[in-house]
Amino acid sequence: MVSRIGREIELSPVELGSQTAKRVEINLASGTPDPQVMPLKEIKEAYEEVINEYGSKVLFYPGAGGQEELIREIENKVLPLLGLNAQDNKVVVTSGAQHAMELLAKYFLENNTIAVENPTFIETFTPLRLRSNAVIPISLDSNGINVDELETLLKVVKIELLYVIPNCHNPAGVNLCEERRKKLVELANKYDFYILEDDPYKPIAGTTPRPIKSFDREGRVIYISSFSKIIAPGLRIGFVLAREDIAEKLALLEQMDFSTSTINQYVVAKLIRKGLISSRMESLSHHYGKKMKILMDSLIDYGFKDFNTPKCGFFLLLDLKKDSWDVFREAVKLGLSFVPAKPFFLRGGETMARLSISVANEGQIKEGVKRLRDAWQRV
Amino acid sequence: MVSRIGREIELSPVELGSQTAKRVEINLASGTPDPQVMPLKEIKEAYEEVINEYGSKVLFYPGAGGQEELIREIENKVLPLLGLNAQDNKVVVTSGAQHAMELLAKYFLENNTIAVENPTFIETFTPLRLRSNAVIPISLDSNGINVDELETLLKVVKIELLYVIPNCHNPAGVNLCEERRKKLVELANKYDFYILEDDPYKPIAGTTPRPIKSFDREGRVIYISSFSKIIAPGLRIGFVLAREDIAEKLALLEQMDFSTSTINQYVVAKLIRKGLISSRMESLSHHYGKKMKILMDSLIDYGFKDFNTPKCGFFLLLDLKKDSWDVFREAVKLGLSFVPAKPFFLRGGETMARLSISVANEGQIKEGVKRLRDAWQRV
Repeated sequence: MVSRIGREIELSPVELGSQTAKRVEINLASGTPDPQVMPLKEIKEAYEEVINEYGSKVLFYPGAGGQEELIREIENKVLPLLGLNAQDNKVVVTSGAQHAMELLAKYFLENNTIAVENPTFIETFTPLRLRSNAVIPISLDSNGINVDELETLLKVVKIELLYVIPNCHNPAGVNLCEERRKKLVELANKYDFYILEDDPYKPIAGTTPRPIKSFDREGRVIYISSFSKIIAPGLRIGFVLAREDIAEKLALLEQMDFSTSTINQYVVAKLIRKGLISSRMESLSHHYGKKMKILMDSLIDYGFKDFNTPKCGFFLLLDLKKDSWDVFREAVKLGLSFVPAKPFFLRGGETMARLSISVANEGQIKEGVKRLRDAWQRV
Repeated sequence: MVSRIGREIELSPVELGSQTAKRVEINLASGTPDPQVMPLKEIKEAYEEVINEYGSKVLFYPGAGGQEELIREIENKVLPLLGLNAQDNKVVVTSGAQHAMELLAKYFLENNTIAVENPTFIETFTPLRLRSNAVIPISLDSNGINVDELETLLKVVKIELLYVIPNCHNPAGVNLCEERRKKLVELANKYDFYILEDDPYKPIAGTTPRPIKSFDREGRVIYISSFSKIIAPGLRIGFVLAREDIAEKLALLEQMDFSTSTINQYVVAKLIRKGLISSRMESLSHHYGKKMKILMDSLIDYGFKDFNTPKCGFFLLLDLKKDSWDVFREAVKLGLSFVPAKPFFLRGGETMARLSISVANEGQIKEGVKRLRDAWQRV
């Protein structure tokens, strides 16, 4: 009676973790940026200013593809901060990176074969998965996706696209090294596929290699960014940088949902113009880096040693060596939420937990790890 | 290389009309509510108030399905104004009615057969069309969709769903009469299909028959509403009222785009709580009714007689008796934009024009019709 998507969609473990987090004391689950450092005052002022400055125009229907005022600010101010330029490419404003992934999946996929990192971020991956025939997981190590494994695959399987999270990987915390970035573009050119480069953490990542997109000469890389981490997720504003013909199609596809708030686009444009992005990049990377250090130190203090060392971002992937759902259920009883990470993996991952430092403060992180240890001991 | 949706999506004639309208003097194209009566001041205050009242919470990621605060206001204050209640049904907040249609299409359709009014609103129809195998047009008269024609069809063809715009039809301006509303529900029960009742104009429609949904006992009617006409489209907030199991699935599908701004949901909740919806319903229906009267009088003054008499809303469908694209091109030269309505029709419609009174003021409407006559004479 319903479509494949209708049949197969299910509650995301991240959403489950977030819902659980509302009922417990310590939240090591959520990927929401730290409320302590959200630019509330600046956002409030920006709403007032754009209404005063532009009047009713900010409350009209959005144009497909985004408001010119925001596109210009992204091209002139944001792309250079990310190590990109708009040459031969176009910016399409979206309702955050998740919406961008939905548009891209809708555009590219119809029962194709795709490849993704193992693990990958389940929520952005879902729109791709539900429109693919086969999804091939490629291993991830501390330098990102294993390009040799990918090439071995490409020699025998034609893929339509590859989905990668190059910086502060969610959930693995790693950065893709520059050499592999270059190699991915070579592979895309040689084996005729597209790369979706999902890079929402870059603005808070500190120093990272150049975007994969910056090596791209054939328009095979589609770059996806977001203002969710650097400003706030509740505005639902992100963007795509893609080859002109693809960008134009994505803009047309936006007619199908017309979901991107006009006034929020003006607010983001105003905040960019005021220099909010550039002024926050460094301080936020320090802010989150400091919290991550506390998490790692606490884990070691409590005897947890099987984890990657995150380069940046919000997440650390911990191998609990026990079923992570079992530990999760005990943790919730002790007032702690995290995300059991099995659903991020296409193979393996049963004992993995995603811990987030974005919302918890220093004391909560330490106490959270203590409770994690207690929960772990009960399993 | 790309999906069917990727291949088949094209620029909507409404979007084309709106883009053209930006370059001409008189806009009889746009479906944007009248900027003269947008509650700018109230919206500006509401942003300030929700940030002061709730803090960073309004800038977190939205929950799938909508914020509790808004859902409660819709259930308690808005549904009764629309002649509805939530009994056995659930509210799902969406990024406007267009996004709701996209979610519903995604849920229900995978190369099915569907039926729609002829004409229908091309933009909301597109997500349905691009996922259907066959679309059957059913005639529309001054009392709405022809239910006898529909029943004749249903005896020989199984349809998955029927899409109808019951009030202030876009583009035809008609209201569906009560008797036919009742009949549609009977048919849906007997022939096992769903009805998408797309009702964005109801809050500014004045007196209309009870919603189709209000006759529904089996959960076959999905009601779609929007705050775009009664508050402002740039917030991108609307909602769906559907049977619980369907509503829950739609909420899950929202995980795929997570496009509905959190803060805008709080703003709409605040405005509802302040009584903005109920206080504006009557005055807006008068406001637009007065402008429509001016359009009809002007058309008659300039010798145009082949049009329906709109019951409410923004649109009038005029038969130009000449190719409407030819007239459109001449009109643009004279500084007038309207929407050639052929793309709204699955059969016929080559000579039809959609004229809108939403944005133009009294003088512009009169001058617009004069220019339309001049353009018409040149063809």
